[in-house]
Parts: sequence; structure tokens; C-alpha cells
Amino acid sequence: MDAIDDQLGELRAIGRVSSPLGDRASAPKQGDEGAPEATLEIAPEYEPALHGVAAGEELLVFTWLDRAERDVLAVHPRGDSTRAETGVFATRSPDRPNPIGLHRVRVVAIDGPRLRVEDLEALDGTPVLDLKPLLGKADER
Amino acid sequence: MDAIDDQLGELRAIGRVSSPLGDRASAPKQGDEGAPEATLEIAPEYEPALHGVAAGEELLVFTWLDRAERDVLAVHPRGDSTRAETGVFATRSPDRPNPIGLHRVRVVAIDGPRLRVEDLEALDGTPVLDLKPLLGKADER
Repeated sequence: MDAIDDQLGELRAIGRVSSPLGDRASAPKQGDEGAPEATLEIAPEYEPALHGVAAGEELLVFTWLDRAERDVLAVHPRGDSTRAETGVFATRSPDRPNPIGLHRVRVVAIDGPRLRVEDLEALDGTPVLDLKPLLGKADER
Repeated sequence: MDAIDDQLGELRAIGRVSSPLGDRASAPKQGDEGAPEATLEIAPEYEPALHGVAAGEELLVFTWLDRAERDVLAVHPRGDSTRAETGVFATRSPDRPNPIGLHRVRVVAIDGPRLRVEDLEALDGTPVLDLKPLLGKADER
């Protein structure tokens, strides 16, 4: 293909993660490997977009992994240097050209624009980009 | 929460969707509702990041829905005006503050930086942002 124009629209933080996880060394690799509860502090101007999100549901949280490296194209899986390098698109490494984090969480409680969630492995202060319902087959919708 | 700085890093298109779907009116709402095969034309400089992606596998494709509206906070579900408006974070509407598309597809064939995939509902020319393995539980990894 021809060279592509790689400048797209700007991202907007719709909120931030508030979490006891302070740095990458303390974070589990995935949310189901011992991540703590965390709070999604959604900015007040986006609260209308939360209408219909309910406690008890699972949802997908998209974050911007702002402490990741963007010039990494291959990594050792799970940081194990004895394993062969793999392209980042075949891994869940945070280091990748667009460090978008995808997290499946359960909503524990909602208080206005604050969502308490389980099993979120994102670091404290991480920008939140989007929330979506789970991917499902047509007969589940 | 206090007002947040909403300017984040710039997105980079890692490639584009090549698809017979030319506009939103012709696109199904979800990939499993009759989307055609499509090709992910990854830019050559990102080909090393594909190492380990294999034909036959399912993967998650992240796109930038560049024809979406970003100032929409609530919609009628599935465009049905008889249904009550719902916040966009409780829907899969492309119209949302950060129009990131998430698509679960199966890779049919790989030819260098070109990935032929099934069930992709993105429009022709849509920028591709990221590819990731499916979300899975720890015991599936």
C-alpha cells in the first residue's frame, strides 16, 4: 500500500482511573490475575453518556496507557526473555504504536459520574477513553 | 473530580480497512450480522508487529471510526426512535466522544502486511489503530 497519512483526530480523556496501582512493576498483567478494585472518575460533562450503565453489569473499558512505549514492535511474551520475540499485535503488551488498553470489568457501584469497578489492572491516573457493552453474539443483544 | 486535561497523545493509523462497504447506510450494526470479508492493509513499517498473528485465529481489531460524530452523548438504541435514549457508553453506537471501533474477526489469510478477515463491519478506508489477541481468562492463555 502507499504511505498513509498517520495523523488522526485527537483523543479526549473522558475520565481517569483512580487505583492503588502506582506503577507498572506492581500491576498484574491482566485484570483476572489479582487486580484491585478501582474507580473510574468520569468527567461531569460526560455523565449523560453513562445513562443505561448499571451496577452488576460487565463492561469494556478503553484506556490510554500513557506510560507505555510507542516505538516497540516486538516483545518477549510476558517479559520472559527466554521466549522468542513476538510482534506486539499478537500480544497484550502495553507497549505498541497506539497504547489503547482494553479491560473487561464488573461495575460494583455507581455514584453519579464515579463508577466503582472490579478487576481493573490500569495504573492510577490512566486516562479513560471509552466504555462499551461487552461484545456479544446477535442472539445475546 | 476537577476538570481534566483532555489532550492526549496523537493516534497513528497503522493501516486502513479495504472493504466493499462504502457508507454507514450499507453497513450492518455488528460484524456477525452479515458483514463481508475485508482486508486490513497494514502499513509496511508495522509489518514486524504482525509476527505471531496466524491465519485461522480470531483477533480484536481496533479502528478509528472517522465518519462518526463525536459530540453525541445519547442515542436511540439501534436507531429505533421508539426506544428511549440511552447514553452512548451503554451502546455500541459509532457516535461517541472517542469513536474507537472494536471488532472481533477471524483471519482468513495473511499476505505480508495484508490480512484478509471475515465479519468486519468497518467502512472502506477506515483507519486501523491496533490489533490484539482475544480477551481470555488466565487459564486460556
